[in-house]
Amino acid sequence: MNICIIGLGYVGLPLAVELSQHYKVIGYDIDKDKISELKKGKDITGELDKHQISKLKNIKITDNILDSKTRIDFYIVTVPTPIDIDNKPNLEPLKSASRLIASKLKKGDIVVYESTVYPGVTEEECLPILESISSLKVNADFGIGYSPERINPADKTRKISQIVKVISASNKYYLNEVKNIYSRIIAAGLHEAPSIRVAEAAKVIENAQRDTNIAFMNEIAMIFDKLDINIYDVLDAASTKWNFLNFYPGLVGGHCISVDPYYLTHKSEEAGFIPDMLLTARRINEGMTDFIVEKTIKGLINNEVNVKQSKIAILGLTFKENCPDIRNSKSIEIYKKLKTYSSNLTLVDPYIDSLDGIKVYSELPETQFDAILILVSHNDFYNLSLTSIKEKYFKPGSFIIDIKNFLKTNRVLIN
Amino acid sequence: MNICIIGLGYVGLPLAVELSQHYKVIGYDIDKDKISELKKGKDITGELDKHQISKLKNIKITDNILDSKTRIDFYIVTVPTPIDIDNKPNLEPLKSASRLIASKLKKGDIVVYESTVYPGVTEEECLPILESISSLKVNADFGIGYSPERINPADKTRKISQIVKVISASNKYYLNEVKNIYSRIIAAGLHEAPSIRVAEAAKVIENAQRDTNIAFMNEIAMIFDKLDINIYDVLDAASTKWNFLNFYPGLVGGHCISVDPYYLTHKSEEAGFIPDMLLTARRINEGMTDFIVEKTIKGLINNEVNVKQSKIAILGLTFKENCPDIRNSKSIEIYKKLKTYSSNLTLVDPYIDSLDGIKVYSELPETQFDAILILVSHNDFYNLSLTSIKEKYFKPGSFIIDIKNFLKTNRVLIN
Repeated sequence: MNICIIGLGYVGLPLAVELSQHYKVIGYDIDKDKISELKKGKDITGELDKHQISKLKNIKITDNILDSKTRIDFYIVTVPTPIDIDNKPNLEPLKSASRLIASKLKKGDIVVYESTVYPGVTEEECLPILESISSLKVNADFGIGYSPERINPADKTRKISQIVKVISASNKYYLNEVKNIYSRIIAAGLHEAPSIRVAEAAKVIENAQRDTNIAFMNEIAMIFDKLDINIYDVLDAASTKWNFLNFYPGLVGGHCISVDPYYLTHKSEEAGFIPDMLLTARRINEGMTDFIVEKTIKGLINNEVNVKQSKIAILGLTFKENCPDIRNSKSIEIYKKLKTYSSNLTLVDPYIDSLDGIKVYSELPETQFDAILILVSHNDFYNLSLTSIKEKYFKPGSFIIDIKNFLKTNRVLIN
Repeated sequence: MNICIIGLGYVGLPLAVELSQHYKVIGYDIDKDKISELKKGKDITGELDKHQISKLKNIKITDNILDSKTRIDFYIVTVPTPIDIDNKPNLEPLKSASRLIASKLKKGDIVVYESTVYPGVTEEECLPILESISSLKVNADFGIGYSPERINPADKTRKISQIVKVISASNKYYLNEVKNIYSRIIAAGLHEAPSIRVAEAAKVIENAQRDTNIAFMNEIAMIFDKLDINIYDVLDAASTKWNFLNFYPGLVGGHCISVDPYYLTHKSEEAGFIPDMLLTARRINEGMTDFIVEKTIKGLINNEVNVKQSKIAILGLTFKENCPDIRNSKSIEIYKKLKTYSSNLTLVDPYIDSLDGIKVYSELPETQFDAILILVSHNDFYNLSLTSIKEKYFKPGSFIIDIKNFLKTNRVLIN
């Protein structure tokens, strides 16, 4: 059994490494730079540990699988499923991967999709491409499946084999084949969904549920800000109830939680149902950047600082703590918005060298700021304390916006 | 120390019983019928077990505390905080309780409110009444506090002493007094909130968070209904992820989750912030009755049943399983809506004798129904299975609407 992984990112790469311990694995990506980095043993996602990186050499990494010497029996598609500028699903990477596979597909092969989609994409969008280009028929000639990825980027304790995996396929026979493959690498166990659509639906609501709960926290953070009540004191008290859910206010960016819900809202609206909860959650979470920008500018104005000349530091630019990924980072959105007010911004993030043509510092440079925004809780910032910040970086009137309660002061605005 | 509990309902009654083991307790209620039932040792809330009922005789139960012989040092207010027909907070019971207390208030007394409110009610609405009528000053003459009730009606395992209690007061001295009282009865421990407003805020978001999570589930239930995907299959699959939250679609009625969020939305709107998440959650949950009514009527029409003559059974009328409370029951709302379609409704609920002038059966009468709606999962219904229902109560075309997956078939519509 030769397995080909299409797309070597946060999802495909760890999967390829795990499978390569049991099968011959071909790793495909369209990004030639990524291919050449990986061939040199460099993992730009940061997901692989040293041990796993050493195993990269077992994988045949390539940007070309169409040559006749490369035999493939089992395909796993782990390409991105982004959204367009108008928040509509962009299925082009999935369709393009399907076209590639279809041109090589042979009898008995199996194609499993892992990318997050709305219910129906695998069977209504990908399958027709596979069938028409290959001139083969599903189930009669080949099988398809859907098994949602549940990778949690930057989570070092919960890796792929420790996360229960949902699997589904076009019929019982192919479901069994899919099960055989994944059961070799998933120690936590497999859950067989009764249909591909159910498996697709299960994944997309997982992230939408998280988006909703963070939106709830962001909304109450904004309400309590208006009422001059400390949100963190309230959360401390509420969390003493046995069934209170410990979510926190914050920025929702990246390529999962801030993107996936739009897949479901798209399909829902297509079916004539306007999903108010999901859309409201998205809107609230998208609006948090304005809330933080307003709080910053108001703070400067209240201190009678010349806003245009004000020195503002932004700590954390990636979409998530301890992760190099800047895709759809709300922190960068805040930087862009603040740039329209102040021409004196200092960016700090150990994961990034430069942004937008300006240098990004790996730690806060020793100077006095009017405002310091702590937006991403990288472990690298742990040496910063309220005392050290006040000592080194404050001048009269300086303040900190600490949306994540990183400094454990239970205050969003610290002065 | 003599303690007076104002309001002997789901909250006040168990509290009075617990406190009566350590203090002299006076139980006050304006409802003369309730007073006379309680004096006979009858608990209409069903919250007290036999052992607790036997202790009712230790409490001085009265509808009059103004006589000079009744000395009171510590008041706990556990009156309802309902909403008006337009979903605005109705603070009249709280204000009325405050007027009663104020007319008796003396130096050194403490008044603790437990009713769920929006942040500010205790200090901005209740305190001025206490001060103006008593001519005493807070802190100088008497203390106030807020300690939100966390009673979970019909929960037999998590009783008052096993639930951590948040406490707050007007100053440190009175906080210590409040702590002394509650620590005698709360084995789970106390959490001291830094202010009364924080304690008020903590309680109201607990129920709003639950409302939001159920609304999320109700919305996706409606989306997947449109897409013809089985919601329970999806939840089975999604719940295999470590951080998926196991909420379920359903009716949100009663006097807490369906009411409390409006207290917070009121205060928020007053402060100029429109709380979209909270309001959307409320609207989705309120809309579930229409969804169920539509599903029922469509089922009848698809089966070419004469809707006007159709025989529909509704199982469960209270707002919650195993609880006699019908306040703001969405099941009763469904009954009222279905009554405008069919003139042949059968109501079943072991907790209720009659409703709206018609008999309520304690179990399903043996006849064949066109539609059976299982809306509340009372333990008393556990002898019903899909097989037994199909045997005894089905005719060709009959169907069940099982919104709570009570029959464990993973289907909402069963035929």
